[in-house]
Amino acid sequence: MNLENIKDPKMIKSLSEEQLEKLAEEIRKFLVQKLSTSGGHLGPNLGVVELTLALHKVFDSPNDKFLWDVGHQSYVHKIVTGRASGFDTLRKYKGMSGFPKMSESEHDVWETGHSSTSLSGAMGMAIARDLKGTDEKIIPIIGDGALTGGMALEALNHIGHEKKDIIVVLNDNEMSIAPNVGALHNILGRLRTAGKYQWVKDELEYLMKRIPAIGGKVAATAERIKDSLKYLLVSGVFFEELGFTYLGPVDGHSFTNLIETFQYAKKTKGPVLVHVITKKGKGYKPAELDTTGKWHGVGPYKIESGEGVQPVSAAPAWSKVISDAVLKLARKDKRIVAITPAMPMGSKLMEFAKEFPERFFDVGIAEQHAITMAAGLATQKFKPFLAIYSTFLQRGYDQVVHDVCRQKLNVIFGIDRAGLVGADGETHQGVYDIAFLRHIPNIVIMMPKDENEGQHMVYTAVQYDDGPIALRFPRGNGLGVAMDDECKEIPIGSWEILKEGNDAAILTFGTTIEMALDAAKQLMKVGVNAKVVNARFIKPLDEDMLHTILCTGMPVLTIEEAVLQGGFGSAVLEFAHDHQYHNAQIDRMGIPDKFIEHGSVSKLLEEIDLTTEKAVEKVQKLLEKQSIIKQQRA
Amino acid sequence: MNLENIKDPKMIKSLSEEQLEKLAEEIRKFLVQKLSTSGGHLGPNLGVVELTLALHKVFDSPNDKFLWDVGHQSYVHKIVTGRASGFDTLRKYKGMSGFPKMSESEHDVWETGHSSTSLSGAMGMAIARDLKGTDEKIIPIIGDGALTGGMALEALNHIGHEKKDIIVVLNDNEMSIAPNVGALHNILGRLRTAGKYQWVKDELEYLMKRIPAIGGKVAATAERIKDSLKYLLVSGVFFEELGFTYLGPVDGHSFTNLIETFQYAKKTKGPVLVHVITKKGKGYKPAELDTTGKWHGVGPYKIESGEGVQPVSAAPAWSKVISDAVLKLARKDKRIVAITPAMPMGSKLMEFAKEFPERFFDVGIAEQHAITMAAGLATQKFKPFLAIYSTFLQRGYDQVVHDVCRQKLNVIFGIDRAGLVGADGETHQGVYDIAFLRHIPNIVIMMPKDENEGQHMVYTAVQYDDGPIALRFPRGNGLGVAMDDECKEIPIGSWEILKEGNDAAILTFGTTIEMALDAAKQLMKVGVNAKVVNARFIKPLDEDMLHTILCTGMPVLTIEEAVLQGGFGSAVLEFAHDHQYHNAQIDRMGIPDKFIEHGSVSKLLEEIDLTTEKAVEKVQKLLEKQSIIKQQRA
Repeated sequence: MNLENIKDPKMIKSLSEEQLEKLAEEIRKFLVQKLSTSGGHLGPNLGVVELTLALHKVFDSPNDKFLWDVGHQSYVHKIVTGRASGFDTLRKYKGMSGFPKMSESEHDVWETGHSSTSLSGAMGMAIARDLKGTDEKIIPIIGDGALTGGMALEALNHIGHEKKDIIVVLNDNEMSIAPNVGALHNILGRLRTAGKYQWVKDELEYLMKRIPAIGGKVAATAERIKDSLKYLLVSGVFFEELGFTYLGPVDGHSFTNLIETFQYAKKTKGPVLVHVITKKGKGYKPAELDTTGKWHGVGPYKIESGEGVQPVSAAPAWSKVISDAVLKLARKDKRIVAITPAMPMGSKLMEFAKEFPERFFDVGIAEQHAITMAAGLATQKFKPFLAIYSTFLQRGYDQVVHDVCRQKLNVIFGIDRAGLVGADGETHQGVYDIAFLRHIPNIVIMMPKDENEGQHMVYTAVQYDDGPIALRFPRGNGLGVAMDDECKEIPIGSWEILKEGNDAAILTFGTTIEMALDAAKQLMKVGVNAKVVNARFIKPLDEDMLHTILCTGMPVLTIEEAVLQGGFGSAVLEFAHDHQYHNAQIDRMGIPDKFIEHGSVSKLLEEIDLTTEKAVEKVQKLLEKQSIIKQQRA
Repeated sequence: MNLENIKDPKMIKSLSEEQLEKLAEEIRKFLVQKLSTSGGHLGPNLGVVELTLALHKVFDSPNDKFLWDVGHQSYVHKIVTGRASGFDTLRKYKGMSGFPKMSESEHDVWETGHSSTSLSGAMGMAIARDLKGTDEKIIPIIGDGALTGGMALEALNHIGHEKKDIIVVLNDNEMSIAPNVGALHNILGRLRTAGKYQWVKDELEYLMKRIPAIGGKVAATAERIKDSLKYLLVSGVFFEELGFTYLGPVDGHSFTNLIETFQYAKKTKGPVLVHVITKKGKGYKPAELDTTGKWHGVGPYKIESGEGVQPVSAAPAWSKVISDAVLKLARKDKRIVAITPAMPMGSKLMEFAKEFPERFFDVGIAEQHAITMAAGLATQKFKPFLAIYSTFLQRGYDQVVHDVCRQKLNVIFGIDRAGLVGADGETHQGVYDIAFLRHIPNIVIMMPKDENEGQHMVYTAVQYDDGPIALRFPRGNGLGVAMDDECKEIPIGSWEILKEGNDAAILTFGTTIEMALDAAKQLMKVGVNAKVVNARFIKPLDEDMLHTILCTGMPVLTIEEAVLQGGFGSAVLEFAHDHQYHNAQIDRMGIPDKFIEHGSVSKLLEEIDLTTEKAVEKVQKLLEKQSIIKQQRA
């Protein structure tokens, strides 16, 4: 069967289980094939083939609403909703997104990317349904990893209380991205081993009602006995306590079990939690055997061996540079503790974990807790290094303000994936952190020009004793520069002149330094001698250097791979006007006021005019304008 | 006993229960007396008198560490740690804070204000302790309301998993600020009625071990029977499932029970949850009888009657103006749904709740869930009005970015308590929202000059159909202006000239408009004719008006009761430079880059130079500078 011929998921309804098995096999082949060239979230999608087909068989999308939590497991859903052909452009510029997108299909009713949002979204939809008086089913599909995110737990608590008809499908594959942590995980583990699914609850309730009501102390005891019986007969007491009907565990690769359970869930009143056990990577050996999370999201690979086919960069990954530096320092400094919210692999902290298991904490998907726990450690004079992606730090904004910065605690934020991230797209771009951190008192924000400066910044952060300090670094690999043997401290708030020049100044940091140097080269060809500054501290600014530059009256261009509003360039504007450089010629380049979709970083930079050419043009325009003003004055 | 003589909590250790009873009585009298003139969090503190004394009797502060979640219940702790005399300046400028403050006492080891942070802080401290190899006890004291905050649930999950020695004291008074909601609340309710405290678990475990281990299916059944027995004998299975030893429920006003339980908890290994039942307002009739949360935080009152003594303002409270307008529109527009995270009283939504119970949702302390649930409603074409304090919106930054703005959903944010809030101090100042919202694509941000414009803005927000819109308004009362009968739409991004003038322009909004008009009056006296603009849209700016103003070359002063970095003034700077007004004379006034402590708003404004005098001075300086430049050019 050509999967591209599937235009409507309704076709699944008429398929027999045998035909479904066959379709599942084809989908798996298709995914392994397509992703071997495009890369993408292979493991999660291979795990939910039967689950997705069973959902579409039992429920009626888009009237019934599927909310794919995180959303990287929505590929099968995309295939059966008419988007198989989209896999040729998966995660590419202007191509199909790797996440649910309303603009792609009416079957995508809720967009995701960050985890743990689906239950709250479902609750909103369920309220809307009940106010409208319609009867569609609302079905969030959430992984066991995402379930420990605070917002998901808040939602469970609210849904259970309000007794709304919501069918939560818990896709339990025993790992999120890395193996899961947390007490809830232990609970799920016990449930998994408790035997096959059953739903004796109705019968039990009937029995219960026959126990006569008795007042006073005896009644309380009777209640306890009732509850105890329930616990004996019904699994999932944790979820039952929260007000859910627990169904499961269900074999997530058995159509019979899945379909039967979903049909039962469909008839059940009130909130239901269907506990489905799936295997990440199911049906493709290299992915099935993976225990580390390597096959969660992958680049292109050879189908036979599972071997990656992308050229190995000579330069180390940024995450590795930073985590290596942290590990090196941790060997000498016992105060250093490393924390990650569910990203030990991505943040390259496995070596740290191995060498210092008692000083390493993967708290699971729980960014808020990670940040405030780091604050707790810092009150006791430890030096927590919190590795966190820029986009996920958004989850802990209040914790950064209220718990870390307000208490002025020495927490080190290792902000990974800062700047454009490429294929993951708009939900994952790390472009807001400067704008949401810069206005918080007491924090230092810095970004290195290369991996050598990166290790010096880690050292600087560890030495720094006057509050929180954030070290942001990009996704991908470093520049391959030589690394100093000894780390040194970089004075807080000090910038570095990379190229002298007296006609104009380009102030930038991190990934856009290369662009600035290129622009300066090109400007030189037309007789403009531009200074290029590594503005490695975004906060505090290098005030001395700024005074020196602004005093000369030379035009200033700021460049940042971060949002323009409230960003570094704005900081320079603020400084200029606060110090009465009212006629300073300042222009800014950065991310405009819109969400930036997926695609290669180079394509995206072009799209938003963050290019060498534009920088050259901007400097020239500033100079022209200046000469006009000078002429006017003359 | 003169409470001011208590310098060290160690004195409590030698007191008999009878003496403790007497001390408790004196503390209650003291609190009722002191707060009758100062105002403050009376209810929560009257509820924890015995609890606090028992904690200090059993544990050794500051070696053992108390973390007061939220912190408004720390008054008794302050009294017994030598700060009784501080109550004369409670919550006043430069006086004692209403929350724990490290700078006040070594017994305050963790600062709070926002809820649900104590468990994460405690986990950090417990990790630190175990790495150091010391044996102090870590004791977070958290209310049943705060426990439903996502971060607290994340922490429970992590603590239970890591099996750290932490004694969580759950102060269950059956209400947070308003009566509690959520399934957890139902669980606690069942536990409360389950009888007196007991700790049979040790004995049970001993018994369990005698059941022989059997392989295969029988083992699973045996496990279930074990679990069932446990459930029969041990309360708090919910917490036990999460890995905690549950102790309780304990009568929170019985020294015998409290002390005995804490002593037992002290000896217990691993995480313990002590479930203490207290009564908010205990010992003071008006507060005890309160079911709405009115006595949670109060202004000055008459001790005899409990009647408030503050002059009733002729003008309505801002919250009331906004919620009235929402209610009025909701009568005609069925799409409107109101949501509050635990602040139905503060947000004055009780009337809405009464009239439209099925369209009103108090989700408890769960800001993240509230925001994303609103997004879910908006996907179904509803118009959720989310009433949320500026400082608590910080909890949902990522939800605003990822779920609301990115999906461009019509959620209306009613941002209450925007600007300085006064007595609650640095944890509660609503001064960051502009800086953390302005850079998010798709959002509109506005603030009304008076309550009449406030109701028009509510109307405008409901009519607006192009994405999220935020209406921020201050704490306290409106200006008492006349209200139009009919609401009208204000064009998005349109400012209003309040006073014409050609020498300079003052751009401001909301609470600082009065200051700007005053400044203009004073400037007029010295011959400067300043334009005053109600810049009621912070995003988008009124670009036409800005062009008009900047074209003239008149100096511009921006004033905002919000942080300067990345704020409204910065938006004006950005606009000016983006449009090549490079020699625009622009200066900004606002909140500087530091945390602003408690005190009356007027005192705080003076401290940070946000005054009429300063505005006058700034405009004059700008004009002087301009004339110097003009002279230079001439």
